[in-house]
Amino acid sequence: MTLGHLDIFNRSAALFDEVTILVTGNPNKQTGLFSIDERVDLINQVIDQPNIHVDTWAGLLVDYTTENNIDAIVKGLRSSLDYEYELPMAQMNKRLSGIDTVLLLTDEKYGYISSSLCKEVAKYGGDISGFFPEPVGQAVLEKYRA
Amino acid sequence: MTLGHLDIFNRSAALFDEVTILVTGNPNKQTGLFSIDERVDLINQVIDQPNIHVDTWAGLLVDYTTENNIDAIVKGLRSSLDYEYELPMAQMNKRLSGIDTVLLLTDEKYGYISSSLCKEVAKYGGDISGFFPEPVGQAVLEKYRA
Amino acid sequence: MTLGHLDIFNRSAALFDEVTILVTGNPNKQTGLFSIDERVDLINQVIDQPNIHVDTWAGLLVDYTTENNIDAIVKGLRSSLDYEYELPMAQMNKRLSGIDTVLLLTDEKYGYISSSLCKEVAKYGGDISGFFPEPVGQAVLEKYRA
Amino acid sequence: MTLGHLDIFNRSAALFDEVTILVTGNPNKQTGLFSIDERVDLINQVIDQPNIHVDTWAGLLVDYTTENNIDAIVKGLRSSLDYEYELPMAQMNKRLSGIDTVLLLTDEKYGYISSSLCKEVAKYGGDISGFFPEPVGQAVLEKYRA
Amino acid sequence: MTLGHLDIFNRSAALFDEVTILVTGNPNKQTGLFSIDERVDLINQVIDQPNIHVDTWAGLLVDYTTENNIDAIVKGLRSSLDYEYELPMAQMNKRLSGIDTVLLLTDEKYGYISSSLCKEVAKYGGDISGFFPEPVGQAVLEKYRA
Amino acid sequence: MTLGHLDIFNRSAALFDEVTILVTGNPNKQTGLFSIDERVDLINQVIDQPNIHVDTWAGLLVDYTTENNIDAIVKGLRSSLDYEYELPMAQMNKRLSGIDTVLLLTDEKYGYISSSLCKEVAKYGGDISGFFPEPVGQAVLEKYRA
Repeated sequence: MTLGHLDIFNRSAALFDEVTILVTGNPNKQTGLFSIDERVDLINQVIDQPNIHVDTWAGLLVDYTTENNIDAIVKGLRSSLDYEYELPMAQMNKRLSGIDTVLLLTDEKYGYISSSLCKEVAKYGGDISGFFPEPVGQAVLEKYRA
Repeated sequence: MTLGHLDIFNRSAALFDEVTILVTGNPNKQTGLFSIDERVDLINQVIDQPNIHVDTWAGLLVDYTTENNIDAIVKGLRSSLDYEYELPMAQMNKRLSGIDTVLLLTDEKYGYISSSLCKEVAKYGGDISGFFPEPVGQAVLEKYRA
Repeated sequence: MTLGHLDIFNRSAALFDEVTILVTGNPNKQTGLFSIDERVDLINQVIDQPNIHVDTWAGLLVDYTTENNIDAIVKGLRSSLDYEYELPMAQMNKRLSGIDTVLLLTDEKYGYISSSLCKEVAKYGGDISGFFPEPVGQAVLEKYRA
Repeated sequence: MTLGHLDIFNRSAALFDEVTILVTGNPNKQTGLFSIDERVDLINQVIDQPNIHVDTWAGLLVDYTTENNIDAIVKGLRSSLDYEYELPMAQMNKRLSGIDTVLLLTDEKYGYISSSLCKEVAKYGGDISGFFPEPVGQAVLEKYRA
Repeated sequence: MTLGHLDIFNRSAALFDEVTILVTGNPNKQTGLFSIDERVDLINQVIDQPNIHVDTWAGLLVDYTTENNIDAIVKGLRSSLDYEYELPMAQMNKRLSGIDTVLLLTDEKYGYISSSLCKEVAKYGGDISGFFPEPVGQAVLEKYRA
Repeated sequence: MTLGHLDIFNRSAALFDEVTILVTGNPNKQTGLFSIDERVDLINQVIDQPNIHVDTWAGLLVDYTTENNIDAIVKGLRSSLDYEYELPMAQMNKRLSGIDTVLLLTDEKYGYISSSLCKEVAKYGGDISGFFPEPVGQAVLEKYRA
């Protein structure tokens, strides 16, 4: 979770009554730097709006949104490349379950903050303050120190 | 107003409590096929959801949204070209007034329906049924017949 | 007609049995540097393959292609911008008449040769040899000398 | 082979005298869901036009096209991203053997159907009817059930 | 001249020994808000680096760069759309005179500041402080007050 | 190192006083076809301008540029896709150390020459003359023969 993600979460919470941050993936197979549980824990440390909830899901996204009566999927767009990537997923999700996708434009202050670039900077000992909310930045540094 | 616009209006009305369709432009200077009043009239013939309103404005968009406590501007995206066009406008509007912009992806059924292409088809007498809501299609045909 | 257009004509003639170069526009209203008749004349001076024909049309493109049993529209693509421009036109033409659109990639040698850039070079007396087939280059120079 | 591929095959067969569907890859190394032989078998179950043939090749594409006197490579374009991906390959193939590349625009009904998205839906037990020709859909389901 | 332009000027002056800001256009035909002379005057009010010079030119850009032994043209890129627009011009200029083009990425703080958007804001009386260097902002406001 | 890279090196050397070609990567972990040492050796065989130097670095790029008082990073752009890829890296590098990024447009003659495509051609025994400087071409062939 970068400051860019946090900005999208906060703006979503200002526009919609209820927002769910969904951490997806197989709980038995860690694919990124953090496990599913660690991600949920870090998000809970950072988020304190009453209308944002965190949940996890290991299946098809639209099965979660249908079961939980969610009206729309919110995504952040950093570039026209993100647009090309989100478009077929949005069309697929609408086709599978009728759910709509809402796109928010990433604030230009955070456009360059991709998880992969930030992790490369952290890996080489670069200064990652200003990319992550404070508890996340701490946790990333600890992972790379280990 | 094409069927693509109507689809964006209806999806906005499903996501947000109140939606205002804003017809902008100088009421004394007709720039398109229809005058401001004709546009409002056609929209009112087509829209019947209780949470969609129509209004007109001749000034800066963000002055309208600030005065009327509007939370977000909704735009439809047909292509990555639309994204490149909307991005600086959205950043400018946020800078001027803090308002956020929400992007909905145009349904693939309507992606090819641009006002300019539809008007060219109408001009040469092509079949424009299926591009416009029925009253709008009638009005376009009458304009070109005149 | 630039060398880029000529390359597309020749490659189309190698791929398809019959190719029609269609000069579109209102014969009573000259919009570019050359009238419809001048365009046809210049194309005939340059083209000599037996399976390429030249014709003119003042109406909707798909009305011509339907009347003449044409199977596909061929367009040249210089960039992803051209793609974004051709896509809705191709979808519209398929919707109106069922005709398919075939895209050929502009040879990288000619990608920078747009009519508008070439005309600007000619206007300021720059060297336009190498942009146009010889008779077209001559005719462009005469227009700007006049 | 998705319905998007099938649409490109059928439109190619309407435009050209002979069409060869070439399944490429090392027959001793299975990289996708299906082996080379399974792919050929599935295509043959779906295709019945007399002017479409299926073949396999483990080498450089242009060596196949030169040996078999093939005039052009046909590719489907779903987005400007596909354009950026196909452009250098088309230029490379022309450089290596002189062969031209013809691009067909994916029907908007199938633009969201990428093999990777469809396989993800299948993996999570989502409904994949409407993405594949019937025998292919069956075979995909069997692979994921196994 | 926006703050985005000024940023490109200053970064060019840091990278190259000598920088010439070239105001192009016909001195007898005012096409924008300001005449050629007004533009030169405003630039001179804002720029004070010793290695930046201002000049004017009414002909083909490459004739100026050749006559003045200029090594490269510097352009600012705000988006991939700017890239698509600059690419054929750069290739044309290299073809005509051998000159190279150097692209600098617009700082994300200024990406949304296009001359056309700023002028529209000024026209409707919006707050344009923060888009222009101070003397330019004053001059724009005076033009719209007149 | 392809002919496209060589062209960017030579054009950089014509624009700037000193140019450093930096071969990055972990010297103990070979990721591509050639080791770090082999890369340096091949570059030295091809480059003979006195103002181009070759160096290696295993850390964060901006740590090297700061330590060595380098003013700008030069990158070649083959497409708008390259632009989208370079943009966040350039913003990140400016953010971390203040360094600017300068983009040169790949000559259209070399746009299709990507390392990955060339290596695929070499792997299948295709003709790779004309993609690489002569010593590099030899070395690539030897790797694939081995």
